[in-house]
Amino acid sequence: MKKYEEMSREELLKEKAELEARFKEIKEMGLNLNMARGKPEPAQLDMTMDMFDLVNKDTVLEGEDGTDLRNYGVLTGLPEARKLMSEVLECEPDEVIIGGNASLNLMFDCVSRAMSLGVLGGTPWSQVPDRKWLCPVPGYDRHFAITELFGFEMINIPMKEDGPDMDMVEKLVSEDPSIKGIWCVPKYANPTGTTYSDEVVKRFAALKPAASDFRIFWDNAYAVHDLDVEDPDVLLPLLPESKKNGTEDMVYMFTSTSKITFAGAGISAMGASKANIDSIKAQLTIQTIGYNKINQYMHVKYLKDREGVKAHMAKHAAMLKPKFLATDSILREEIAPLGIGKWTLPKGGYFICFYALNGCAKRIVALAKEAGVTLTGAGAPFPYKKDPDDCVIRIAPSYPSVEEMRQATEIFACCVKLASVEKFLAE
Amino acid sequence: MKKYEEMSREELLKEKAELEARFKEIKEMGLNLNMARGKPEPAQLDMTMDMFDLVNKDTVLEGEDGTDLRNYGVLTGLPEARKLMSEVLECEPDEVIIGGNASLNLMFDCVSRAMSLGVLGGTPWSQVPDRKWLCPVPGYDRHFAITELFGFEMINIPMKEDGPDMDMVEKLVSEDPSIKGIWCVPKYANPTGTTYSDEVVKRFAALKPAASDFRIFWDNAYAVHDLDVEDPDVLLPLLPESKKNGTEDMVYMFTSTSKITFAGAGISAMGASKANIDSIKAQLTIQTIGYNKINQYMHVKYLKDREGVKAHMAKHAAMLKPKFLATDSILREEIAPLGIGKWTLPKGGYFICFYALNGCAKRIVALAKEAGVTLTGAGAPFPYKKDPDDCVIRIAPSYPSVEEMRQATEIFACCVKLASVEKFLAE
Repeated sequence: MKKYEEMSREELLKEKAELEARFKEIKEMGLNLNMARGKPEPAQLDMTMDMFDLVNKDTVLEGEDGTDLRNYGVLTGLPEARKLMSEVLECEPDEVIIGGNASLNLMFDCVSRAMSLGVLGGTPWSQVPDRKWLCPVPGYDRHFAITELFGFEMINIPMKEDGPDMDMVEKLVSEDPSIKGIWCVPKYANPTGTTYSDEVVKRFAALKPAASDFRIFWDNAYAVHDLDVEDPDVLLPLLPESKKNGTEDMVYMFTSTSKITFAGAGISAMGASKANIDSIKAQLTIQTIGYNKINQYMHVKYLKDREGVKAHMAKHAAMLKPKFLATDSILREEIAPLGIGKWTLPKGGYFICFYALNGCAKRIVALAKEAGVTLTGAGAPFPYKKDPDDCVIRIAPSYPSVEEMRQATEIFACCVKLASVEKFLAE
Repeated sequence: MKKYEEMSREELLKEKAELEARFKEIKEMGLNLNMARGKPEPAQLDMTMDMFDLVNKDTVLEGEDGTDLRNYGVLTGLPEARKLMSEVLECEPDEVIIGGNASLNLMFDCVSRAMSLGVLGGTPWSQVPDRKWLCPVPGYDRHFAITELFGFEMINIPMKEDGPDMDMVEKLVSEDPSIKGIWCVPKYANPTGTTYSDEVVKRFAALKPAASDFRIFWDNAYAVHDLDVEDPDVLLPLLPESKKNGTEDMVYMFTSTSKITFAGAGISAMGASKANIDSIKAQLTIQTIGYNKINQYMHVKYLKDREGVKAHMAKHAAMLKPKFLATDSILREEIAPLGIGKWTLPKGGYFICFYALNGCAKRIVALAKEAGVTLTGAGAPFPYKKDPDDCVIRIAPSYPSVEEMRQATEIFACCVKLASVEKFLAE
């Protein structure tokens, strides 16, 4: 097969005609496939249904310390739930707060409270008119939506092979006290699949920000979500590392069981220094009466500990990995030889990141939609939905079956080719 | 029996000596009773345990429209949950948002978002330096804690027989655009037990506030919590009433099932106009991925509709009412003849409000603590915990058993007498 860039105009026109015919055929199939959202497929959720056999009308709903789980009380989470989630977050149980069903809500609350009340006695962020936030890109659209809502100017930080460009991060945070935070997904990052190297984590732990209320929002959403269970990526734990430098107050860590048990009915957790936990707890006591302890209990009984989580996640991996491999294999066959795209095959997480030729991402997503395949919007992995090169497309293989994923990727490949041919012909 | 105010100094001294001897005996019993928190007793929670038999590993967890309850999605709540809670809140289902386990958190979020983002396009409240809030007193300490945290100057509004002093409310809100809200518990109010009269509700619905972003926080926490099931108080629904005046955007209503199913593991709900719901929804989509739909499903299956709720609450009433009656009967016997206190016997809700002689509340609470009976702190039902007359004590009969409540009230009565004798002797 010839690369597109090596083709003559005639060859490109011939290829285009063939692709258009193929595209027409696909459209006539009237498909409706979705590679847009990192949500589990029903069969994956079935794997956790036995959790509901842990509680029935005769169950004694008591915590290990005798707490009546059905009544008021216990603001920061059951001790046993804090212990479980501390093993996921890799910190101490008393450095953990258990939240509701969404870690996103914990992150939102941290920004929201800081806006009105400040962080550890600092000026409320709402009073910092030129407030800024660092955003490693491509990244997670829902992170960027929070800081956009609260009026932060978002600054793109390029992602490298081993994490964000730390030279840039170090320079910016040390110089500008109006930079209040950075969004990070340190393991199997959304969407690049990158796991931050030990060196990157150490440089995060050693940051010397100009703002004393600068916070690293360390969203470890895929902490235990290995696809390659024999040879997973290993992330250096940030909080212990930061303690070595006395920078532990700079760290907010988050995770949840949304993609361990039930998306939307799991439990979330936050990990932070004692000083941060105490301060958040003082505000939380006014915000809520405490989160659902019965759900915490069910999660602890079901998952038990980090080993239990690992065993459960191995079942997920067995279901998810073939979808990633199917996508990879089709892209290798259809796209690689033509020189019109690159992509990641991560050892964990929920996404494949596809890099199209510059200027093609929007067109590919539009074509795919026309052909019955929904993709995450082009631009979504960037602040303000602006991909400067219009080249990144996030592929989410978790929801479709392997067979659907194969079909969807074949259609996707056709769209990539068509958009790329159009690009070369327009040049 | 002679009233204390009619006793001579000698009689008072004799009474004091007898009370002190009795008090010493009580202390030696080493009791530990709690009338402080409006929390259900375990036997009341047992009444709802069969809810957990509604779901097991084979249950098809689907919403009525086919939504997979275990997966992401559905931001404002399952349609069937919105319908159920609309019957409690007395508004339309599309005027309802279902929240997490705490309506307090919904209220906090409304204030918090308004602080940073404003209300329906208004100036963020954080930019209103002299922001103020109206607080009918005595009221609910957790309400006041929210507005204190966010820096509102809180203005006491006296509670009358049929609700807050509306002359004062109308005058203040029409004159001062820095008044942004008012806390209301319109039915079986915490702690007075008052249900707002139709006239008061109509005057609320007809308010003409100077601030276009003024909001009535209508915390209908005891909407279905009748003790006198044959002859309950009936509250005029506020949202329909406000629509008659075109003031519906002024209304935020809240409720939860914390005291219907499980305290801390129920579902909460907010009711508001379409314009408010749309605006909150737009912010909520950034705040969270949506609340726990499985818990919503369980509540709908269990409670079914307003009739189902009513039937369930009649069981609660049968358990709760004897505790209220026991307290009332002891106070009638021990306190009434002495002219040293008044109290409420509400037709619903969770509290008896005791009015001691001015200047005695703190002393009574301290004495009770010494005697092994924990009461809500004196002053708690007031902003900044300052009861101007030091006379209000909130009694919560829900947690102790009838027998414990009898014992606790007898001890309480002894403390009231002792504090009152001391007062007369000091004059």
